[in-house]
Amino acid sequence: MKWIIRVNTRTGEISRQEATEEEMRWGGRLLISKFLLREVPPTSDPLGRFNKFMIAPGLLGDTIVTTTGKFSVGGKSPLTQGVKESDVGGEAGKKIARLGIKALVLEDIPEKAGTTKVLMIGGNQLTLSEYPELRGKFVSETIRFLRKRFGREAGIICIGPAGEMKMAGAGVAVTDLNDIQVRYAARGGLGAVMGSKGIKAIVVDDSEAVLPHVFDDGLLREASKTLAQAILDDPKTENRHKFGTPAILMVANELGLLPTRNFSAGQFERAEAIAGERVAEVIAERGGEGRSGTPCLRGCVISCSNIFPDPSGKRTVASLQYENITLLGPNCGIGDLGDIAELNHLCNEVGVDAIETGAAIGVAMEAGVIPFGDAEGAKDLIRQIGQGTYLGRIIGNGVVVTGKVFGVRRVPAIKGQAIPGYDPRALKGNGVTYITSPMGADHTAGNTFETARTINPIGKEDQVRNSRRLQIRAAILDTMGLCLFTRPPFVKNPELFTLFLKGRYGWDITYEDVQKIGIDVLKAEREFNRRAGVSEEFFDIPEFMREEVLPPRNSVFDISMEEMQQIWKVKIPRDVF
Amino acid sequence: MKWIIRVNTRTGEISRQEATEEEMRWGGRLLISKFLLREVPPTSDPLGRFNKFMIAPGLLGDTIVTTTGKFSVGGKSPLTQGVKESDVGGEAGKKIARLGIKALVLEDIPEKAGTTKVLMIGGNQLTLSEYPELRGKFVSETIRFLRKRFGREAGIICIGPAGEMKMAGAGVAVTDLNDIQVRYAARGGLGAVMGSKGIKAIVVDDSEAVLPHVFDDGLLREASKTLAQAILDDPKTENRHKFGTPAILMVANELGLLPTRNFSAGQFERAEAIAGERVAEVIAERGGEGRSGTPCLRGCVISCSNIFPDPSGKRTVASLQYENITLLGPNCGIGDLGDIAELNHLCNEVGVDAIETGAAIGVAMEAGVIPFGDAEGAKDLIRQIGQGTYLGRIIGNGVVVTGKVFGVRRVPAIKGQAIPGYDPRALKGNGVTYITSPMGADHTAGNTFETARTINPIGKEDQVRNSRRLQIRAAILDTMGLCLFTRPPFVKNPELFTLFLKGRYGWDITYEDVQKIGIDVLKAEREFNRRAGVSEEFFDIPEFMREEVLPPRNSVFDISMEEMQQIWKVKIPRDVF
Repeated sequence: MKWIIRVNTRTGEISRQEATEEEMRWGGRLLISKFLLREVPPTSDPLGRFNKFMIAPGLLGDTIVTTTGKFSVGGKSPLTQGVKESDVGGEAGKKIARLGIKALVLEDIPEKAGTTKVLMIGGNQLTLSEYPELRGKFVSETIRFLRKRFGREAGIICIGPAGEMKMAGAGVAVTDLNDIQVRYAARGGLGAVMGSKGIKAIVVDDSEAVLPHVFDDGLLREASKTLAQAILDDPKTENRHKFGTPAILMVANELGLLPTRNFSAGQFERAEAIAGERVAEVIAERGGEGRSGTPCLRGCVISCSNIFPDPSGKRTVASLQYENITLLGPNCGIGDLGDIAELNHLCNEVGVDAIETGAAIGVAMEAGVIPFGDAEGAKDLIRQIGQGTYLGRIIGNGVVVTGKVFGVRRVPAIKGQAIPGYDPRALKGNGVTYITSPMGADHTAGNTFETARTINPIGKEDQVRNSRRLQIRAAILDTMGLCLFTRPPFVKNPELFTLFLKGRYGWDITYEDVQKIGIDVLKAEREFNRRAGVSEEFFDIPEFMREEVLPPRNSVFDISMEEMQQIWKVKIPRDVF
Repeated sequence: MKWIIRVNTRTGEISRQEATEEEMRWGGRLLISKFLLREVPPTSDPLGRFNKFMIAPGLLGDTIVTTTGKFSVGGKSPLTQGVKESDVGGEAGKKIARLGIKALVLEDIPEKAGTTKVLMIGGNQLTLSEYPELRGKFVSETIRFLRKRFGREAGIICIGPAGEMKMAGAGVAVTDLNDIQVRYAARGGLGAVMGSKGIKAIVVDDSEAVLPHVFDDGLLREASKTLAQAILDDPKTENRHKFGTPAILMVANELGLLPTRNFSAGQFERAEAIAGERVAEVIAERGGEGRSGTPCLRGCVISCSNIFPDPSGKRTVASLQYENITLLGPNCGIGDLGDIAELNHLCNEVGVDAIETGAAIGVAMEAGVIPFGDAEGAKDLIRQIGQGTYLGRIIGNGVVVTGKVFGVRRVPAIKGQAIPGYDPRALKGNGVTYITSPMGADHTAGNTFETARTINPIGKEDQVRNSRRLQIRAAILDTMGLCLFTRPPFVKNPELFTLFLKGRYGWDITYEDVQKIGIDVLKAEREFNRRAGVSEEFFDIPEFMREEVLPPRNSVFDISMEEMQQIWKVKIPRDVF
């Protein structure tokens, strides 16, 4: 038995319904898309009464399978005006799943704006209480406060001042067990949706957890071991463990797709100084609290996170990741790891997506607000987001608003959302994904970087089919609650999914059925977007990317809208993950 | 023979083509919609290379028919992302028409942003020259400069600093013969489109005008006299002449539809102090340069404009109109005519739509940036638009950006554009027009205020059909180049249109054909919007208007989306204008 918890943030009413048979087959991203389509009027105001803020563990969320502590956060996005699912690690997800919660749904908005309530979720209690002390508090301050109040074992999900101020660049923060890693469901402005509900934090106490009824525990354990071992055997895993996600930075730089100075170049002259290898070196040199190869949630065999220390060994930020380094670093002309780590930390404190914010700062730099390379100026801009100054509010609302306000034409965004760390002119498959994915410009919705060796990234061939395949792949993993980095074993043996679903639920399905789940996710999301008026047919790559060549590969994005629109007709072999 | 003039603002190339037979049947708003659909990619960036800035006199623009000096300005709107046609009086329109120009089309954008070029249009010369002295200049300074350079007889069209900075609230200014009236093609942000083309001003010299070949001059003159006399005989005309457009303010207040304090009420306690009657009184009392009943263009028999003076008799602004009074006055809690006149003057100087700006200030007031009623604060905000401060850029980009940046939920906008001076909760027909018109929330696209006596403004009955009829009516007048205020004689005798078209062009058509022209305009516009992704099916009234009752009539907007979507199926009798 699983529960759907609904909180009416206007009346304070909290209800608990048993998940229906149909709902039992939904999880993570699939659940978000189905609920959104069923319950949220597509043209509603993302920050208004009719949007819903949802949290859902993946289908394997309540198992011991590695990485499945990730969970999905979702709702209608104030950035894209369409569906948004953003998944995240940390400790809260596993706890929510262990409480038997299928979905947590925050509904309506308070009569009076500006509350900072805490929703406490336990096995036998569900309470909503106002904590005025939390008003305007940074994420670390919020966590400290909640720890004191709710103890060391609580799972914590919260927003910073940016979310409270309903800025469209705001994300949702989750802590790990020791409050070292601050992880973000960063993209799409879901922090603003949570803020619009007047909820500052969600605290999860799983001390009264309910053991799930597992269909075949032996099978599940065996499949789980197989997966873990296969991940460990994959050569990429060691790289990720050692150097984290920034492991790919030098390759990205070599391929000339590294967003540099507001997407005006694809290579950065100081790339080596900020690459994954250097991150690991600096961590080793400085020692202290610094760590490489740490997990973002318990039980992860990959452990691609890190704790980046300042020269004295004190933690600056955890974790320092590829996307954030790229957008806050090269894209702003900043090439010092210490500066980038501090910028990232500040984003985590005020509670904004570092990608969206880095892109917005890049545009502000192009407009001359501060010069490229001005790290102190950039830090000040992020602090201003937290303070809610006029300039801070502009930047905090993301790259499109920033571009509008400053009259800048080179705005790297698709469907209202900033393009992440892969310039689509030099990685054309990502352009296809940014345009056609219901998520807009998102690096987790079908990132073709992994296939850059087999498919020419600046060629036109096979990009659409490849994006289609990877979009389905991402949708499946996001529905299971598995990290994208678990994919290699599944690529080799897609049937592995069926063992997990058989073991956990007793479902007798084939991999083809699993593929259908991924397709189903995309269908539901596309349908929501179509009704919301943000169908992919209305969005092309930013105009400048079709005409300004990107040095050093000097390519433009040249896949036609017509070809991209054909993506939904592309058939993917039924046995391919 | 008529000409299409095209200016490539990137290369500086200017070309002149003869209008085709098909194009000869287009004028004003019809021409804008047809050109836009034919030439502008619907999903293109409104401030990018592929949008076009267009100017087109109406079909009767080169005749002596009263009010036909109005002309249409158009392009894809940076506010609505859809089609925008905004028509305007002043002197330039007649001059353009007298030069045999069917349309002026500014294409592409300069390689380098920030130019302030002047396009000079004469009978035998078409030149484009840079005037760096004009950079950042207010509209009055720009006009003064151009007068010195081009003489007293030139027609002048220009933008203020807001347009140069590509703010989405920017309009296009036109002067009258004596530079007293500054008229605006205000809505939809077309000033930003002109600014994106690097054109600060268009100067028209009609000293080498070409007399048009008129099919039947006698018939045209006779019809023209009939129209002028009928307008003069209409009781509304005298009222308009005496009190101007603010003549309706007290009725609007009585009906409870006067936007007050960011659309939180429909009546303003100081309405009498700012109504048309009071405007006329103040003008009479103060004397000096003050005038009531002046024309905005030569040959207008209505002359609904005024020159509003300060206590010393010096002109503050010309003209002070209903919409601007409403949005800058009651909507901001400001009830002093002198303050409102000054606010309007400042909008004219920096070059922004007073409606959009008044609405944006109202939202900023709700957010607490300045308090309601703070006239000096409001003036400062408009000055800041001209200075391009962070706050000024927020406000100058219109009400939706302002609402986003400040996290305000009560944003009175539809399709990205501010709702004008008629709250749709107390004038439901206007709600239908705001939602279904391809123009978004626009008071000239099918304003049902004129039918408020015959159709209950807070009832649900007949609103959709009525809006449909008035939308067609507006489209016809905007295509002819006639002022909306000429409508009474046409309502009585729609066949009058056929006399004009027969006299001017020799067309043998019936009123039914004229009605089809209006329907054709709306079809072309809707098709452009559909392709641009801003079909009316994706926009409802702002959510707060469906739930917050509007005092004192305590109504909400309750016409369903479903009913409004039926509007295009409503048949209007073929003989009704």
